[in-house]
Amino acid sequence: MGLERIFNAQSVAIVGASLDEKKRGFQAIRTLLDDKYEGEIYPVNPRVDRILRMKCHKSVLDIEKHVDLALITTPARTVSSVLRDCGRKGIAGAVIVAGGFGEFGEEGRRLETEIVHTATQYNIRIIGPNTSGIINVHRNMNLVGLKDVPRGNIALLTQSGNVALNLITEAKLKSQKGFSYYVGVGNEADVKFHEYLEFFENDPNTKVILIYVEGLRDGRKFLQQAYKTTTKKPIVLLKSGRSVTGKKSAGSHTGALAGISEVARTSFERAGIINIENYDALFPAAEVLSSLPLIYNNRVAILADGGGHATIAADLLTDHGVKLPTLKKKTQARLREVLPQNASVHNPIDVAGGTDSNPAIFADCARILLEDKHIGGLLIVGLFGGYGIRFAERLKFIEEDAAHQMGKLVKETGKPIVLHSLYNFAKPHSLELLRYYEIPVYDSLDIACKSIAVLSQHGHHSAERYNKASFVFKWGAKAKEEGEAIISNARKEGRNVLLEHEGKQLLQLHGAPVSLDRLAENADEAVKIAKELGSEVALKIVSPDILHKTDAGGVKLNVKTEEEVRICFKKIMENARQYNDKADIKGIIVSRMAGEGVEIIIGTKIDEQFGPVIMFGIGGILVEVLKDVSFRVLPISRIAPKSMISEIKSYPILNGVRGRPPVDKRAISTLLLTVSEVIEAYPQIQEMDMNPVIAHEDGITIVDTRIILKKTWK
Amino acid sequence: MGLERIFNAQSVAIVGASLDEKKRGFQAIRTLLDDKYEGEIYPVNPRVDRILRMKCHKSVLDIEKHVDLALITTPARTVSSVLRDCGRKGIAGAVIVAGGFGEFGEEGRRLETEIVHTATQYNIRIIGPNTSGIINVHRNMNLVGLKDVPRGNIALLTQSGNVALNLITEAKLKSQKGFSYYVGVGNEADVKFHEYLEFFENDPNTKVILIYVEGLRDGRKFLQQAYKTTTKKPIVLLKSGRSVTGKKSAGSHTGALAGISEVARTSFERAGIINIENYDALFPAAEVLSSLPLIYNNRVAILADGGGHATIAADLLTDHGVKLPTLKKKTQARLREVLPQNASVHNPIDVAGGTDSNPAIFADCARILLEDKHIGGLLIVGLFGGYGIRFAERLKFIEEDAAHQMGKLVKETGKPIVLHSLYNFAKPHSLELLRYYEIPVYDSLDIACKSIAVLSQHGHHSAERYNKASFVFKWGAKAKEEGEAIISNARKEGRNVLLEHEGKQLLQLHGAPVSLDRLAENADEAVKIAKELGSEVALKIVSPDILHKTDAGGVKLNVKTEEEVRICFKKIMENARQYNDKADIKGIIVSRMAGEGVEIIIGTKIDEQFGPVIMFGIGGILVEVLKDVSFRVLPISRIAPKSMISEIKSYPILNGVRGRPPVDKRAISTLLLTVSEVIEAYPQIQEMDMNPVIAHEDGITIVDTRIILKKTWK
Repeated sequence: MGLERIFNAQSVAIVGASLDEKKRGFQAIRTLLDDKYEGEIYPVNPRVDRILRMKCHKSVLDIEKHVDLALITTPARTVSSVLRDCGRKGIAGAVIVAGGFGEFGEEGRRLETEIVHTATQYNIRIIGPNTSGIINVHRNMNLVGLKDVPRGNIALLTQSGNVALNLITEAKLKSQKGFSYYVGVGNEADVKFHEYLEFFENDPNTKVILIYVEGLRDGRKFLQQAYKTTTKKPIVLLKSGRSVTGKKSAGSHTGALAGISEVARTSFERAGIINIENYDALFPAAEVLSSLPLIYNNRVAILADGGGHATIAADLLTDHGVKLPTLKKKTQARLREVLPQNASVHNPIDVAGGTDSNPAIFADCARILLEDKHIGGLLIVGLFGGYGIRFAERLKFIEEDAAHQMGKLVKETGKPIVLHSLYNFAKPHSLELLRYYEIPVYDSLDIACKSIAVLSQHGHHSAERYNKASFVFKWGAKAKEEGEAIISNARKEGRNVLLEHEGKQLLQLHGAPVSLDRLAENADEAVKIAKELGSEVALKIVSPDILHKTDAGGVKLNVKTEEEVRICFKKIMENARQYNDKADIKGIIVSRMAGEGVEIIIGTKIDEQFGPVIMFGIGGILVEVLKDVSFRVLPISRIAPKSMISEIKSYPILNGVRGRPPVDKRAISTLLLTVSEVIEAYPQIQEMDMNPVIAHEDGITIVDTRIILKKTWK
Repeated sequence: MGLERIFNAQSVAIVGASLDEKKRGFQAIRTLLDDKYEGEIYPVNPRVDRILRMKCHKSVLDIEKHVDLALITTPARTVSSVLRDCGRKGIAGAVIVAGGFGEFGEEGRRLETEIVHTATQYNIRIIGPNTSGIINVHRNMNLVGLKDVPRGNIALLTQSGNVALNLITEAKLKSQKGFSYYVGVGNEADVKFHEYLEFFENDPNTKVILIYVEGLRDGRKFLQQAYKTTTKKPIVLLKSGRSVTGKKSAGSHTGALAGISEVARTSFERAGIINIENYDALFPAAEVLSSLPLIYNNRVAILADGGGHATIAADLLTDHGVKLPTLKKKTQARLREVLPQNASVHNPIDVAGGTDSNPAIFADCARILLEDKHIGGLLIVGLFGGYGIRFAERLKFIEEDAAHQMGKLVKETGKPIVLHSLYNFAKPHSLELLRYYEIPVYDSLDIACKSIAVLSQHGHHSAERYNKASFVFKWGAKAKEEGEAIISNARKEGRNVLLEHEGKQLLQLHGAPVSLDRLAENADEAVKIAKELGSEVALKIVSPDILHKTDAGGVKLNVKTEEEVRICFKKIMENARQYNDKADIKGIIVSRMAGEGVEIIIGTKIDEQFGPVIMFGIGGILVEVLKDVSFRVLPISRIAPKSMISEIKSYPILNGVRGRPPVDKRAISTLLLTVSEVIEAYPQIQEMDMNPVIAHEDGITIVDTRIILKKTWK
């Protein structure tokens, strides 16, 4: 159900309205009046007659007119009954302030389930509970009590009131930008992050979505929605809580703590989200995206009036992955015409005193640089704005002229300028002018660099977007039917695990190149199969009770002659019985030995936040000790395997090292896509482990496969 | 020679004194007069009579009285002759402003050599050239022209005038701290970074040294001096220019660009330098070290009045390597007494509204936390300072009281408090009070976290210091003598490379466990040696003309019988002749085959900035493909090998994986120390490559060693 009627409510009931100035039930009404909310306000409190000259209702049911939204400020235990009244009244949404629900132990979780149940029953949507409230800034519908929220086009979604206060204060003090909406997301008991995204994607007052999140209730839906939303509007996000999660999760170590999880990081990136790790850069990232054109070619020029700032900026942009191309001859020549002889006209450009007596030269250089079609954006660092202070007062008028020129230049060329100024603190008029033209000005060089990098990151994402479209695969109905049969058969036998040959069969149904394995129930059969395969073979025990075949002595490799086959068959059977004398032994698989190649590992599991994910790495110590693996949320797109394969650190091994030939990366890609298809086709699968797969110069061999089913699947 | 007479000059000559207000030769005199410098000022210009009512001298030689220091503002080509005059006058130092020296092509380098020569001849020390000048802030000796440099105890050394301007502006606007000296280091033609360090180490007005550096002329001496200096005073440093260097160096790739070089990073760390990568954190790091006691146990408590800030701060501190211990029961109980029931008294501590009506509770909590001997420092994040604004005006007086209490608490407990406040912008009196007590207050949460982490980093360094003392090794005179003979013998034969058995012999002289290799000149000798070794052997060609023995077919492994020895001997000789028929073949080395173990690699080379460095890694793809190695500048201390070995990512392999036993890490450590000793003993060595060394469960085997000598050694 849409959130339209909630965010654009024509009437609001304040349940728990109060005469006590310190209480939320008073402040909310006062704020709505102060901010001149144009809708109707209905205070509700059975024990009060009038509040702030308005009639107070005993219950929402007593309100005569239509009500869109209720702000519920009463304690947790009362909420369910209030909600029922709201439901009967036909109210669309309830903003529930009280804490003490899901975040507060067993009893809290029970209360939360209860209110969600009530809401569903009456078709009410809940925002929160445990929320600071919501604001529709353009309509002055302020249910939070934060004063003077600046109006603008950034929608703010947060799980912390203090972080919101911080961001809003920053907007007021340092920027001319502001907010379209504020949402305290709270516990996400009912309305979840992805639903807010969908609403803001279609909201005409919102250009950028800014998110502070500690935990996602449904990470998978969030990613899916974000993937859509970022085609239209950028999403800037800071996710915290990694150290808290880290402490709780037993298997964690320092490496895992340094940043958000790899799964989250790559998922956010793939969904086109701007993931911010530095808190200071959070609002500026949203600000710059709400103000300026994007950079589509990832190429930026730096214009500086001092070597130090230029060098630091070059380092930072390089760290952020932005390219600083050397300028074309023609552009260098044009710069030479306006700059002194000792200026550097490479990139970074250092004016070397060339602007000291005439800061308008900044505008000349900006024009020359942005007219170069190889340059996508411009970062100006240093003293601009301070020439009138530092050198001669009359220069401030020249700076103001330059500001006008640069402001118009951005509109004209459709390319951004971001400015760092040491004199920002002095609030010179020239910098105010730049802000008027929506050119952000920062006193932090770090932030200026990060901001222009963000324009490049989102521009790149937009430009590459067409490559990332195909997401979902079709699977043959027949394959699916046969696959389901394999799984039901295992279920029937009371197993949560598919045996090796069953797993391989399932993969083969979906087109994976599975080796010619066959099950032998006795030595004679094994000999026959080995002869047919016509090469060295491997023998492996098949039993639902023996998962770790090697440990059980259940594997023999490089078996050559008929005699060897017979001896090994016998030995494996003996070992298996010794290992577990109650094991249900299905027989022994006979398969051709895999040729030379590189061992790779492919696995899938269910991530707590993001659902099914796939993992790829090179076998042995590289995965086991160095954890050199790449992750993606499933399903993956057709182009995902290429980056999954190339982003592991040990990638060069696949291209051939120490005189070995490169392996068949195309075959690995196809297998990754097949695994994606299989996991989509059979939601019954809990995890899959293909370890190892041998990648040859030509083709691959899946040596072993383990598939575990969900226990509770019905 | 000491810099005392320069930095505390009683008299300054301004050579190039000018009547033009825009010129440095005018501004310098004006600034000295304005700032009330108490020494003598002597303007020098042959074409002017009086400047600012002072007599102008034709030359420094015309000054009647004694002169300590000359500020030379004349163009580059005139500097040498001015210096000569200064020399004759007995002036101790010259600050040379002009550019156009070493940084400006061939002619510039020639000029620079010339002035250094002149200075040496006359016993003058040069600061610069290409410097913005120097300031002794406490004595008002301002030879830069920067206005209102705040006085304090931070010595600032920089290679960028704009960065200096930035830091000084930041100090003025956001802090109560200031500077003892400012030095524009310039080209380091004569006085180098390490000499300034030594001066500031002994300067009573300086407590912290703050450095911005783009390139070090003598990185090795800098490290040696820094290592000494940081026992007395912290050094905070930002090194930029990595992306510029990166562009120039052909072999560089993205990985190498993301941060300063590994050698630089580990060297700075070992020397106890606080290495800052984020420009915004540079001044705050110096500020906090100049104000507060250190944290010696790396354990910090976070006190917050909101969940969001607490969670973000916990993430950031964890990223910085600071520990957030769970509080002891007793401390938790004491907190419970002053906080509401729903407060979190773990760490981070969330007051959960407990301070809303009484912010003095911050001081109560601070006392409880800092009185816990397991807590080394306190970070307060959130709204403190804003209670009087946000809740009720009277609360501001309570906040002021709390500020007094917390300020005194720091002195009393000797533990630091750092504060983040969202209301810093409003400049409430309570925050001014905290600054009076030298508690820094930041509006950036990122910076607040980094600052307290810096206190912990330097405290940890100080606490660990006693472990890091021993640096230099003694080598037996006899070993050295025999080693020199091996090297001279190679030189005599016109070789820059030591043959395998020579290299091993050299290592053995210094105690390395070298295998029982012997050189056989014919097959009979080889058989004899093989018998004596009594096991499988390896045969390897020995020739100064065949460095890549395997490529030449010059290696045979696992040779067992007498017959095999003869066949292999013949085959190797044939292969070698075929590979290079002019090769000077010394014979064939016969050595015992190394047993099972892990292949490791140890190498040394000469780093451009830091001199000899040592590298350690695990052989094969881990070094070749993943570049998983650790570096140290040589010589290394006795405790260095332990961290060198454990900091590689593949370290777990040495502890035994896949059922293998752990290897003998003690033997590896000893070998690293031996290599350090050898490189110190023979500065003739350019690089050494031990690849592989086999590390066994007990002991190690050096399988191959290659030592290359410097070409130009005399």
